[in-house]
Amino acid sequence: SSLNAVNSYLSSVIYVLFIWAECVLYVKKVLVFFASMEWYCYALLGIITALMSFFMDMTVAKLLNAHQWLYRCLKGHHLLQFLCWTLYPACLCALSTSFAHSICPFSAGSGVPEARAILLGMDMPDYLSLSNLFAKLFGLICTLASGSTVFLGKVGPFVHLSVMVGAFMSRLHVSCRGGKQNQIEIRAAKGEMLVVASAVGVASCFGAPVSGVLFSIEVMGTHYSVRNYCPCFFAAACGAITFRLLSVCSTDQETIQALFKTSFSSDLPYQPFEIFIFVLLGLFCSILSCIYLFCHRWALRFVKTNKPISRLLATEKSLYSAIVAFLLACFTFYHSAGHFIASELTMKQLLTSLLDDTSWYSVSQNASALPEPQKTFWQAWNPPGKSYFQTLGFFITAKVGLLVVACTLPLPAGYFMPVFVYGAAVGRLVGEGSAYFLSDGISSAKSLINPGGYALAGAAAFSGAVTHTLSPALLALEMTGQCSHAVPALVATLVSNAVARAKHRPSFYDGISLIK
Amino acid sequence: SSLNAVNSYLSSVIYVLFIWAECVLYVKKVLVFFASMEWYCYALLGIITALMSFFMDMTVAKLLNAHQWLYRCLKGHHLLQFLCWTLYPACLCALSTSFAHSICPFSAGSGVPEARAILLGMDMPDYLSLSNLFAKLFGLICTLASGSTVFLGKVGPFVHLSVMVGAFMSRLHVSCRGGKQNQIEIRAAKGEMLVVASAVGVASCFGAPVSGVLFSIEVMGTHYSVRNYCPCFFAAACGAITFRLLSVCSTDQETIQALFKTSFSSDLPYQPFEIFIFVLLGLFCSILSCIYLFCHRWALRFVKTNKPISRLLATEKSLYSAIVAFLLACFTFYHSAGHFIASELTMKQLLTSLLDDTSWYSVSQNASALPEPQKTFWQAWNPPGKSYFQTLGFFITAKVGLLVVACTLPLPAGYFMPVFVYGAAVGRLVGEGSAYFLSDGISSAKSLINPGGYALAGAAAFSGAVTHTLSPALLALEMTGQCSHAVPALVATLVSNAVARAKHRPSFYDGISLIK
Repeated sequence: SSLNAVNSYLSSVIYVLFIWAECVLYVKKVLVFFASMEWYCYALLGIITALMSFFMDMTVAKLLNAHQWLYRCLKGHHLLQFLCWTLYPACLCALSTSFAHSICPFSAGSGVPEARAILLGMDMPDYLSLSNLFAKLFGLICTLASGSTVFLGKVGPFVHLSVMVGAFMSRLHVSCRGGKQNQIEIRAAKGEMLVVASAVGVASCFGAPVSGVLFSIEVMGTHYSVRNYCPCFFAAACGAITFRLLSVCSTDQETIQALFKTSFSSDLPYQPFEIFIFVLLGLFCSILSCIYLFCHRWALRFVKTNKPISRLLATEKSLYSAIVAFLLACFTFYHSAGHFIASELTMKQLLTSLLDDTSWYSVSQNASALPEPQKTFWQAWNPPGKSYFQTLGFFITAKVGLLVVACTLPLPAGYFMPVFVYGAAVGRLVGEGSAYFLSDGISSAKSLINPGGYALAGAAAFSGAVTHTLSPALLALEMTGQCSHAVPALVATLVSNAVARAKHRPSFYDGISLIK
Repeated sequence: SSLNAVNSYLSSVIYVLFIWAECVLYVKKVLVFFASMEWYCYALLGIITALMSFFMDMTVAKLLNAHQWLYRCLKGHHLLQFLCWTLYPACLCALSTSFAHSICPFSAGSGVPEARAILLGMDMPDYLSLSNLFAKLFGLICTLASGSTVFLGKVGPFVHLSVMVGAFMSRLHVSCRGGKQNQIEIRAAKGEMLVVASAVGVASCFGAPVSGVLFSIEVMGTHYSVRNYCPCFFAAACGAITFRLLSVCSTDQETIQALFKTSFSSDLPYQPFEIFIFVLLGLFCSILSCIYLFCHRWALRFVKTNKPISRLLATEKSLYSAIVAFLLACFTFYHSAGHFIASELTMKQLLTSLLDDTSWYSVSQNASALPEPQKTFWQAWNPPGKSYFQTLGFFITAKVGLLVVACTLPLPAGYFMPVFVYGAAVGRLVGEGSAYFLSDGISSAKSLINPGGYALAGAAAFSGAVTHTLSPALLALEMTGQCSHAVPALVATLVSNAVARAKHRPSFYDGISLIK
């Protein structure tokens, strides 16, 4: 009877295995069927990119927290704090550079110019390989984890990453369809998938679907096929919603909210008269952007033509990165110049503090009543013995140099977010100035000036002027989740773009291409 | 000495005249110089269209007020009220039709399909003539003044009007440039100006610049030249800002605000769980849109094939319009079926009442405490003896028929706003249903359902499904000036578009082209 039992046991095992195999085959069939449908691929592209974006953000946040925790633990020991502050980003930058260059030398830089060339039909398989994907992904995490010392962003490489995922999805789609398509159709479908991927990149980086679609139009340069419009919209919405839903699931946030949610008053966001100040802000941003772009081109040319540096860059890229990151960290250390530029705040905290809707003039009257996070921000911008005008002014002056130096680093890094934060600081300075001079309100006490709105408009205007695009105006609105300052952001961005584009001045990406 | 005085007087007069002539010549020279610059023409196009839009709105509001005042004066005299209610729109519709057809027979209908054909390069000079501009302008004012009885909108003809102004501006630009351009350049510049004009049309109709840009991309059908993107953005912003600034100047409004400003809570606009209800709402809207489009095509075919009606339409268009408007007015008269469909509210009031953020379930508990405008709206939707579910349901059922009948009228009229309001009613019904069944909030008392958000998503989803476009999602956000319901509106619009476009079903405009 024991033989019988073993027999029946074996037969049931075989039966279960058989059913299991059937199920696997069926699931595979269903998956292949779905993957052969384009829309499924678009949705999947959005979801994968959003997952990547979310887990990257989470990892970076953990690494940043670890650094801050260590730094706080060493309080009192200035030398140890200095070493912690400087060696951490230096090591990370060296790691990022060596990682990127040893695995795939094409993964350095922003990737937007390359992604654009690919979208326009150039064949660059090296830039779409799986090894490039991993090198860029890990390199980018290291770069972002070095924080506000190096002050580099995420969106450029992320668009490139998303285009790589799109190329992979398009290969999957073709192989699942079997030999039902001819070469021309395959090429067209691949082109479509890559355009969609560029929209998804921006959308799932900031949770801003419509800006993603506008970016995909702007990046195409000459002609945009309207056939791509609906897929772009759909995939960007999938990406943005997944990205925001993930942060709802992982934190105690109650519902889907914007990445940098503001709480500007919607009753009287600004007086019509203030539009003139916003126009002036746009002009100011465009002049600053010209200075920044000139310095940037100069630095790139200097790095290329200066013998010792170019030799170092050719042979020892990691060493160069480590040295530059170390020097940047020395400058931004709290006890050197760091306390003038609020260097202890991360980039997210910087943006949040600049977009705050209470004017620092009114805060300075009664600083002790502030709630906790705002108090930290206020103390960072208003260190003992300095006023916030001085710190903002020094931030704007010094950051041009720091940004330009950071842009020469040969590692995967985005250059959009730094200029966005820089623009927010410029806007905040103009806004705080206006709030100071018109501290009784413009026509009534109700209509106090909101410097946060100026920071928003300044961020949109400056980043628009540097990249020669208009989508930052919408991006700023989608990132903050409020439309109340739509007109100021639009006006400032249009003015700054008009000045920045006049006389065919090169944009940030044109500058990189020119020097290369 | 008197001769001397006369002499000096004459010479001074001649001198002044000379200076005057110089000045005029100089001003003319400057104007010609500016008009020869494209960007000046774009800005001017935006400003002229916005002025047109604003003065049209003002005239229509005055005409509607006059009608409402007369109607109120006749309170107590049912027969006189009936005559006032029915004859006013009948006369206006007859006037609009006769005006449009006697001056320019091409001015009837929405104009979007024709504008699209022109944008795609077809040569239709009749549709761009100055007589068509005036016929369409005055016809549209009459149509809009007949109010919510006929229930027709503004945006379609307004895009056509804007394209006509654009064509005029492009001729001005060419003549001011002199013979410096060849034919190909002139054609390209004209095409660009017309695309910009289509964006300006939408932007200055609703004060929504980015939606205007998206509309100009969607309307182009196949290829969008990215060269047009910046001019579109610029002109649309000029138009939208001028339009909103004019209403600031003319009313006691303190600053630039959205056309249908809402005040949804931004802390907890919706629970993540509600996204499923929004998906269902999108599905519901798409099914309703299929029914509506089927009825619309059937009615157009019936009007064309039915002998007596087609003969009437061929010979006596004004009579047909008058009869149809009279019948519609009979149905919507308060004492017949009007009090079931809130027919005493104008279209703007209907939309405002549907987008209100307090749920009618909570209002029904304490209706007497409402402030004035909301009280009127509440009484209109909740007439004695009927609940708001019944009126909303009857509105949704009856309006399909009324809308379809109104679409057969041979006069200049837009078909977007009616479906937008209809969609808002559908969304409100779903939202009120959810608020009724989940009246204690979803997870806590704080998270009460906001039916206004459902109305917003429903409006975007239904109008998107009927026209097969995605821009209504953004338009709804820009019209209400709030981003808090961006995700619901996007989700509902994407779902409804996916279903409505499946199996290559024709859109609203395709339906018109098919029958013609």
